[in-house]
Amino acid sequence: MLAAALADGSAARRCTFEVFARRLPHGRRYGVVAGTGRLLEALDLFRFGAAELEVAARFLDERTVAWLRGFRFSGDIDGYAEGELYFPGSPILSVTGSFAECVVLETLVLSVLNYDSAIAAAAARMVSAAAGRRTIEMGSRRTHEQAAPAGARAAYLAGFDATSNLEAVRRYGVPGAGTSAHAFTLVHSGPDGEHEVEAFRSQVATLGTGTTLLVDTFDITRGVALAVEVAGPHLGAVRIDSGDLGVLARQVRRQLDELGAPNTRIVVSGDLDEYAIAALRAEPVDAYGVGTQLVTGSGAPTAGMVYKLVEVDGVPVAKRSSHKESRGGAKRALRLARRTGTIVEEIVYPAIAPRPDPGELESRDLMVPLVRGGAVLDRPELAESRDLVARGLVSLPWEGLKLSDGDPAVPTTFVA
Amino acid sequence: MLAAALADGSAARRCTFEVFARRLPHGRRYGVVAGTGRLLEALDLFRFGAAELEVAARFLDERTVAWLRGFRFSGDIDGYAEGELYFPGSPILSVTGSFAECVVLETLVLSVLNYDSAIAAAAARMVSAAAGRRTIEMGSRRTHEQAAPAGARAAYLAGFDATSNLEAVRRYGVPGAGTSAHAFTLVHSGPDGEHEVEAFRSQVATLGTGTTLLVDTFDITRGVALAVEVAGPHLGAVRIDSGDLGVLARQVRRQLDELGAPNTRIVVSGDLDEYAIAALRAEPVDAYGVGTQLVTGSGAPTAGMVYKLVEVDGVPVAKRSSHKESRGGAKRALRLARRTGTIVEEIVYPAIAPRPDPGELESRDLMVPLVRGGAVLDRPELAESRDLVARGLVSLPWEGLKLSDGDPAVPTTFVA
Repeated sequence: MLAAALADGSAARRCTFEVFARRLPHGRRYGVVAGTGRLLEALDLFRFGAAELEVAARFLDERTVAWLRGFRFSGDIDGYAEGELYFPGSPILSVTGSFAECVVLETLVLSVLNYDSAIAAAAARMVSAAAGRRTIEMGSRRTHEQAAPAGARAAYLAGFDATSNLEAVRRYGVPGAGTSAHAFTLVHSGPDGEHEVEAFRSQVATLGTGTTLLVDTFDITRGVALAVEVAGPHLGAVRIDSGDLGVLARQVRRQLDELGAPNTRIVVSGDLDEYAIAALRAEPVDAYGVGTQLVTGSGAPTAGMVYKLVEVDGVPVAKRSSHKESRGGAKRALRLARRTGTIVEEIVYPAIAPRPDPGELESRDLMVPLVRGGAVLDRPELAESRDLVARGLVSLPWEGLKLSDGDPAVPTTFVA
Repeated sequence: MLAAALADGSAARRCTFEVFARRLPHGRRYGVVAGTGRLLEALDLFRFGAAELEVAARFLDERTVAWLRGFRFSGDIDGYAEGELYFPGSPILSVTGSFAECVVLETLVLSVLNYDSAIAAAAARMVSAAAGRRTIEMGSRRTHEQAAPAGARAAYLAGFDATSNLEAVRRYGVPGAGTSAHAFTLVHSGPDGEHEVEAFRSQVATLGTGTTLLVDTFDITRGVALAVEVAGPHLGAVRIDSGDLGVLARQVRRQLDELGAPNTRIVVSGDLDEYAIAALRAEPVDAYGVGTQLVTGSGAPTAGMVYKLVEVDGVPVAKRSSHKESRGGAKRALRLARRTGTIVEEIVYPAIAPRPDPGELESRDLMVPLVRGGAVLDRPELAESRDLVARGLVSLPWEGLKLSDGDPAVPTTFVA
C-alpha cells in the first residue's frame, strides 16, 4: 500500500486519520482514554532500523525502503487528554500529515490505545465497585510480559491504588504493593510437618509487623491465630485468597477483633472482577487484590478503536459500504454539563464549522493539541490523567456508574 | 518474600515449581502449549540491571539487592514440548532449583505461557474451522504492541498460514501477507469524486496482478468489475471486509466467474471468530483474515495457568485450603493412544514412581528436558512446534474438534 502510494504520488497528500470506537464493549456505559502518554513516548522512538529495513527490502522496492529509512513523523496530532472519558464516535485522536506518514502509524496508535483503554475501562468499573476501599493490581502473570507494566499503568490511571508489578513502579512511578505467596509458607514446611509459624516469623522479622500475612494455606482460623501470635495486635493485614471470601472475611474480622487486633486489615484476592468486588461491599474487606479480570479487560480485552481516513487535501472522505458507518471530515468535540457538573451530552462537530452554542449548559472542549510538526508538545503526567478519570466518573449521571449492562451514559450528537 | 527467604535460609532449599491449568477455558476441549520458545529466549536475558536494582534498593535490604544483582537461573526445567496439546492438570512445565531462583521466575514464566497459549488455543480452533482454507492473522491493532508479534507467532504455531505483522516476520520468520486498506482507496478520491479505479491501477502497477484488491469501499459489484477490468482475469484475489460475508462471497464468486476470472480468490475479513469461519464453510471463500478475536483468545484471553510449589528438598508439599486443589510432588506425564493414533487418556504420575504400564495402548512421554544447570538445551524450532500442533489435532477423538462447549477431549488420570 505504501509502495503504491509512493509510486503514484498519493503518499504526499495531506490526510487526517481519526481514532474512534464505533461502540462501547457490550453493555458498557463509558470508555476511558488511556495510553496517550505511552503513545507519545513511542512516537519519538518509532523508526525503521537496519534489521527492520533488511526484512522490508525482501519485498519492497528501493524507493519504499529509502522512505522507511528516513521516516520520522512530522505531522500534527490532537486528541482527548489521557484519562478523559469517551463514548461511541468520540474523536479520541486526530492524526494529520502526509498519507504515508499517517498510514505507517496506524498499528502503533491502535495497539497502544486499544490495550490501555480496555484495561483502564475495566479498572474504573472495579474502582467504582470498591467504593473507596483500596485496590491493588496483581495481574501480571495473566497477560503478555510487556503488556503487564502497561496494564498496571492503565489500572493506576483509572484509580487503582497500587500494583505488584515492579517494572511499572520503575517505569511509570506507580506505587508498589505486594504480599507473600503460598509458596513462601510451603517452603517452610518439610519432612517434619507444616510450619506456617516459621514463615510468619520470618516475614515479620524481615518486613515488620505492618506486613500482610497470607493466612489460608492450611487452615484459616489457625492461620489467623498464628499470625496475631507472631506479629502481635499491630499486624498490618491478613490476606485471604480462596473460599467464600464474604463468609471468610466476616469470620476472620470477628476472630481478629477477639484477638485484640481490630486495626489489622483484611485483603481479599482470587478471581475478582467488578461484580465480585461489589458483592463484597457489605463485608469487612479493606482491600482487593485483582488479577486476571483486570489485565484482560473483564470481558472486553480490547477497546475496539479504529483508525480511519476522514479527510484528504481538505475534502471529507468516507467508506460507503454497509454496516460500518464512518463520518468524513476532521472533527472536534464538546462535552455539555449542568451547573452541578453532571454531564448530559457529547457533541461532535466538523473542525471547519463554528463551535456549537451550548445554550444554558456548561461546555468543555475535549480535544487538545498533542503533537505539532512531529514534536510532542507536552507529555501528560500520570497523576493529572488519574485525576481526570476521577473527575470524569464523578461527572457521570448516576446510571453511568451502574455495573449492569446498559447504554452509553450520555448521548452523542453528530453535527453535520 | 525473597528478602525473608534469604534472611532465614529457606531461599536455598531445593524446590520444584509446576505450571499447570486447573481447568480449560469455559467449554474448551483442549489447550495448546505455546510460548516455550519465547520463554527460553527470555530466560537467557532475564537479569536485574542497574536501573532495576536502583528501584529494588528503595525497599529491599542490601543482601537481597546483592542477590538480585548476581541472579542467573542455574536450575533445571522440563516440560511439554511447545505445540503439545494439554488438558486440565497436565504438568506443562516443571522448574527445579533453589526456592529463590525459582520464585523470581514465576511472573515471566506465566506471562509468556498464559498469553501465547491463549492465542494458540483460539487459533487452533479457527484453523480447524477453516478446514484447509488459508488463514491470515491480522490482529496486531487489537492487542498490546509487544503482544502483537507474540500473538502472530502463536497463531502460526497453531496452524495459521501467515501474518500481517512485519515484526513477527522479522523476529520469528512467520510468513507475511497483507492487503490494502480502505484508506488506500479513499486517498485516491478527491474533490472531483471517487476514484477507486486509480487505487486499483496503482496497486496493480506496483504489486502485479497477483495482488489482493479490496473491493468493498463503495459498491462491491462495481468494485469487482473495476478490479477485473484493471488487473485482468489473472487478478490474485479480492477482499470483502463488511456486510453479510456469505451472501457477498457467493455473489462475488458468480460475478468473477462471469467476468472470466475463475481463479481469482476471495478473501474475507471483519470480526471473524471460529464460529463465523465455520459458518462460511459452504460458501466460496478461499481465505480468512482474522483479527480481534484471534489476538484476544476468542473469549479466553489468558490460559489461566498457575505456578505452584510442589516439592521442597524432595518432599511433596501442597496447599490444603478449599476449592483450589493442588497435587504435591514433581510429576511426569504420559499420553495413551489406540494403534490408530487416536488418543484416549492422559496419565500424570509422580516423578519418583515407575512409569505406568500402558497395557495394550501406545504411549508417549510428554515431558522433555529443556534447561539443565541454567543452560538451555535446545531451542524448539517453530516449524517443528507447528507440526506437533497439527499432529496433536489429528490425534484427538472426533468430539475433541467440535467447536461447541464440551468437556476435555480425553480424561486425565492422576496416579497417586
